[in-house]
Amino acid sequence: MAGIVVQNVQRADAAVIAGLSAAGVATVHEAQGRTGLLAPHMRPIYPGARVAGSAVTISAPPGDNWMLHVAIEQLQPGDILVLAPTSPCEDGYFGDLLATSAIARGCQGLVIDAGVRDVRDLTAMGFPVWSKAIFAQGTIKATLGSVNVPVVCAGALVNAGDVIVADDDGVCVVPCATAADVLAKAQAREAAETAKRERLASGELGLDIYAMREKLAAMGLKYV
Amino acid sequence: MAGIVVQNVQRADAAVIAGLSAAGVATVHEAQGRTGLLAPHMRPIYPGARVAGSAVTISAPPGDNWMLHVAIEQLQPGDILVLAPTSPCEDGYFGDLLATSAIARGCQGLVIDAGVRDVRDLTAMGFPVWSKAIFAQGTIKATLGSVNVPVVCAGALVNAGDVIVADDDGVCVVPCATAADVLAKAQAREAAETAKRERLASGELGLDIYAMREKLAAMGLKYV
Amino acid sequence: MAGIVVQNVQRADAAVIAGLSAAGVATVHEAQGRTGLLAPHMRPIYPGARVAGSAVTISAPPGDNWMLHVAIEQLQPGDILVLAPTSPCEDGYFGDLLATSAIARGCQGLVIDAGVRDVRDLTAMGFPVWSKAIFAQGTIKATLGSVNVPVVCAGALVNAGDVIVADDDGVCVVPCATAADVLAKAQAREAAETAKRERLASGELGLDIYAMREKLAAMGLKYV
Amino acid sequence: MAGIVVQNVQRADAAVIAGLSAAGVATVHEAQGRTGLLAPHMRPIYPGARVAGSAVTISAPPGDNWMLHVAIEQLQPGDILVLAPTSPCEDGYFGDLLATSAIARGCQGLVIDAGVRDVRDLTAMGFPVWSKAIFAQGTIKATLGSVNVPVVCAGALVNAGDVIVADDDGVCVVPCATAADVLAKAQAREAAETAKRERLASGELGLDIYAMREKLAAMGLKYV
Amino acid sequence: MAGIVVQNVQRADAAVIAGLSAAGVATVHEAQGRTGLLAPHMRPIYPGARVAGSAVTISAPPGDNWMLHVAIEQLQPGDILVLAPTSPCEDGYFGDLLATSAIARGCQGLVIDAGVRDVRDLTAMGFPVWSKAIFAQGTIKATLGSVNVPVVCAGALVNAGDVIVADDDGVCVVPCATAADVLAKAQAREAAETAKRERLASGELGLDIYAMREKLAAMGLKYV
Amino acid sequence: MAGIVVQNVQRADAAVIAGLSAAGVATVHEAQGRTGLLAPHMRPIYPGARVAGSAVTISAPPGDNWMLHVAIEQLQPGDILVLAPTSPCEDGYFGDLLATSAIARGCQGLVIDAGVRDVRDLTAMGFPVWSKAIFAQGTIKATLGSVNVPVVCAGALVNAGDVIVADDDGVCVVPCATAADVLAKAQAREAAETAKRERLASGELGLDIYAMREKLAAMGLKYV
Repeated sequence: MAGIVVQNVQRADAAVIAGLSAAGVATVHEAQGRTGLLAPHMRPIYPGARVAGSAVTISAPPGDNWMLHVAIEQLQPGDILVLAPTSPCEDGYFGDLLATSAIARGCQGLVIDAGVRDVRDLTAMGFPVWSKAIFAQGTIKATLGSVNVPVVCAGALVNAGDVIVADDDGVCVVPCATAADVLAKAQAREAAETAKRERLASGELGLDIYAMREKLAAMGLKYV
Repeated sequence: MAGIVVQNVQRADAAVIAGLSAAGVATVHEAQGRTGLLAPHMRPIYPGARVAGSAVTISAPPGDNWMLHVAIEQLQPGDILVLAPTSPCEDGYFGDLLATSAIARGCQGLVIDAGVRDVRDLTAMGFPVWSKAIFAQGTIKATLGSVNVPVVCAGALVNAGDVIVADDDGVCVVPCATAADVLAKAQAREAAETAKRERLASGELGLDIYAMREKLAAMGLKYV
Repeated sequence: MAGIVVQNVQRADAAVIAGLSAAGVATVHEAQGRTGLLAPHMRPIYPGARVAGSAVTISAPPGDNWMLHVAIEQLQPGDILVLAPTSPCEDGYFGDLLATSAIARGCQGLVIDAGVRDVRDLTAMGFPVWSKAIFAQGTIKATLGSVNVPVVCAGALVNAGDVIVADDDGVCVVPCATAADVLAKAQAREAAETAKRERLASGELGLDIYAMREKLAAMGLKYV
Repeated sequence: MAGIVVQNVQRADAAVIAGLSAAGVATVHEAQGRTGLLAPHMRPIYPGARVAGSAVTISAPPGDNWMLHVAIEQLQPGDILVLAPTSPCEDGYFGDLLATSAIARGCQGLVIDAGVRDVRDLTAMGFPVWSKAIFAQGTIKATLGSVNVPVVCAGALVNAGDVIVADDDGVCVVPCATAADVLAKAQAREAAETAKRERLASGELGLDIYAMREKLAAMGLKYV
Repeated sequence: MAGIVVQNVQRADAAVIAGLSAAGVATVHEAQGRTGLLAPHMRPIYPGARVAGSAVTISAPPGDNWMLHVAIEQLQPGDILVLAPTSPCEDGYFGDLLATSAIARGCQGLVIDAGVRDVRDLTAMGFPVWSKAIFAQGTIKATLGSVNVPVVCAGALVNAGDVIVADDDGVCVVPCATAADVLAKAQAREAAETAKRERLASGELGLDIYAMREKLAAMGLKYV
Repeated sequence: MAGIVVQNVQRADAAVIAGLSAAGVATVHEAQGRTGLLAPHMRPIYPGARVAGSAVTISAPPGDNWMLHVAIEQLQPGDILVLAPTSPCEDGYFGDLLATSAIARGCQGLVIDAGVRDVRDLTAMGFPVWSKAIFAQGTIKATLGSVNVPVVCAGALVNAGDVIVADDDGVCVVPCATAADVLAKAQAREAAETAKRERLASGELGLDIYAMREKLAAMGLKYV
């Protein structure tokens, strides 16, 4: 099953990707019906980063980072690397040398359900990573994996070319085919939220804005 | 059991609350006999925040944040929201819209044994949260919970009106009735520590300041 | 077995220690054959610290920090305290008073497979700690442990006088006897990496720099 | 706060307790409005045990089992020991000697949010334990705790004299004052379930028995 | 995205399914190139069960078991229910009533990345479950999910009609389309193992059977 | 550092080993001053096993079980295999084929801080394993490790030839050099416990047998 590199991957439109980045993980996740989130153990190595890009996926054996070198050749500017190990692993697959190489190819970040190292350097380079662990443990280059095949990463199915949206709230994956539609919904959602935010900021209550009082009373809520 | 909102909650004196905030979690916890700490999985979403306030408690079903809207109406300036789910849950109950509403009512922060989202916005707004997880997963509004009933939050019993003290060390709860007494003890403790701190800073050893050498020798400590 | 303080501990050469600090955890770990890492649950209380120093080891009962006072007397300038509890524990063994005392003796930091508190103060003091937990829970002084005996800390064997290297990637221990040799290998490694970094930054691929293409093809990697 | 032994504890009626034991944890939990469950990390040391009894509560320091001796004197036949450590701990507080003593006083079992040891002997003796861990780590007898004070055990508030119901599904606590009422509801629930069980066993569907089809269709469920 | 029930699901051949059950999880997993395993937190509620069957998949909201009723209608004799919650959850979605209903429809077992309850009854009924937790916590019936859509369950992608193989080693999923091929490889593997087992049982070493000595020496293994 | 097989390992006396097995983990651990326990995540794959034997240690790369074949050749009758991965791993390093081979060499059991598979077969064969996980995930044979070098296994230092004692309470390691002494202390402890067990069984209280009442009163215990 391993040993495959898929080369011609369709990517979403750059403007759509940029829009999804601006919307952010929480809004995008809501806009696509509360689907696509990676598990909450995926945390950024430094606060404040927010990116979106097309996924170059990697299925890699535990403790073996060989396929990262193969994947880097497949990167197009703006892409995001997404690595899922074939069994649970916290080893440090990725550090400053690979980041240097990935950046040279236009890569925007890494999402990895395993470990990462050289985080001080990565932070200084402004290369964001969302990972399961920070761990200096080295890896080997002995066994094949695959690149741009479908992977399950931190509980979410990711296909090559899917849009990855990542910020301080975590990581969300949007299928390439529905990315434009999700963006439209996300933007509608944001517009609606702006109006509500103002009303809430002025002290108006959600109970009134959303007309919840009657429903709550009907369900039996009692004030004592 | 659910479906109750308790409205008239006694709160501790504002000066006492301010004093507890200044003393900080570690000192307050010691001052009340090493009780009242929430579990160490409760972490701040950004470093440096320190607050104290009266608890408005929320017992909420897993994945359902309806009661947060009800609770916000019960807030008085300076209060802190404390949410405990009725079964373990990491969903993102709270984000920037609810924070906007809570801030408008004078709320100082949130303590939640579940997840939170929009943490970039919350950080920018200076609204501190201590939570079990950061997770963009959305919630629904379908089932009643209760507000200002006693809850067990991250292993600690919290009654409405108890003083919540939270900083980088975590979260501690102080019963309203004993808050003044705990503050007095905390301040006495701080005064004692100041003197010790100076002696320790000058290079004097705890072994001598606390007269431990004899006791250690009597218990059999051997230098080799 | 407990109740022993070993006093005359051999330490590595100061220049070697400084070199290891500059090399950092990931490089040092590679240079000594991928050994010596502490488990990934050991995290710094604030980002950016990097230190190396000789270990003053502490074996302490769960929830009892008495031996820290004994250990502080054994510190020499530049040393690092390494505490391993005798059973798993997250209590806050160490706070600002002990840090004040440790700093007065020239201590550079603490590595503790348990909890720490007063992290706001420790951060302000610039005293770095790598710990399993941040937890305000207090400890007692009732039972003997030992100082400068071999301990297993977060899965790694640490002898007194071993060099502890710690940064944002975690913590690595280098035996005193091999420290100079490990430093030489780490520096050779860094030199080799500098050349590679430049080539990678220019867009050359690891696949070519490391001549991997043939090996990958021989193992059956297929581009589709 | 520690150092108290409450002696005159009201217990629920023996027939009520027996009824709750027969109903089992899942039914009792439902009958009291889905409240009172201890966290799912509380597991029995052997399968098949099911007990109910009045709680003799113990608040104990981490790694210190002194209060168990104090608590055993407070046992009445049929009681269940409930131990909550004051900070998280997995040490083995309880083994075959304490079980021998507890059994001699009529104790039916132990619920402990920490560790237990000698589980082979406890199993042979038929003394059931629900615990967080099985761990041979010994404890000391150095610090006071309290007996029969309110404790939070595995996330649930337990008062002395509350009814503890425990079986393979976990542990549930029922306040003494409402125990008879909860039993009545549990038995009503069981009666209703018996009828449903027969219909379901015959192949009738829950969709029809509970008349769900219309509601599902109204909410938009689509068969494709 | 939710609210869909797919009705006409292709299933693998019954003889193939039976063969996979006999081969067991470890062998099947090897036979399909070490893919398809669910995470190791999926454990059987009692030892000794081994089943294989076609997956009827369920995507369910956290704490809401409504879709289980919908799914049971879709069961064909020999099928296995596979439930994945849309966010992490340990609530007890399934108990003896649902098991009674599922058995009446010919269901062989349940795989659930959440909690289960009434395990004493389920054990007595011989209805095997592989779950993340045993937890009596009840669920509600308020929100739609989907049945027979692709789900990610405990880290593995499961399509309706895939073959689920489960035993004491855990759970493995085999795509319907490749099930016969995987069975052939599994049986070949078993045949090869039988011969090896006899040689190993007679005391011959794997080092010799697999001719490893030379390769190990070439890599530098040293006997001292 | 890897790539070494130490061949001439000193083992403890067979009678001493047998005695330690009979004493069991909890007693042996107490007898050697509460040291030597492996972490509580090490659980037996089936209940009731109790063994003791000399450790043949294995340091193995993550996901690579090659060294197990090397280690089996080093087994002497009665030995116990002890495997520590060089970074955290739950893969299934060991199954029924390796067990067949190990049994043929007289091996009594396996202690592994990683995963194991074929547990149904291992149970049927009566070959006990204490492991961190049960996981069918396969391993490779690509990288050298070492045999009979010192390892840290589940937090405990194990040297080749140390006595491993394992039962339902977990696993304890006793250094070869002190095994006879520890046995003597364990047996003395057991003798003392027998007398106490009888007194406790007759209803006498630990409070009286251990003369605790005065000490407790002096420390301030109050009965209310």
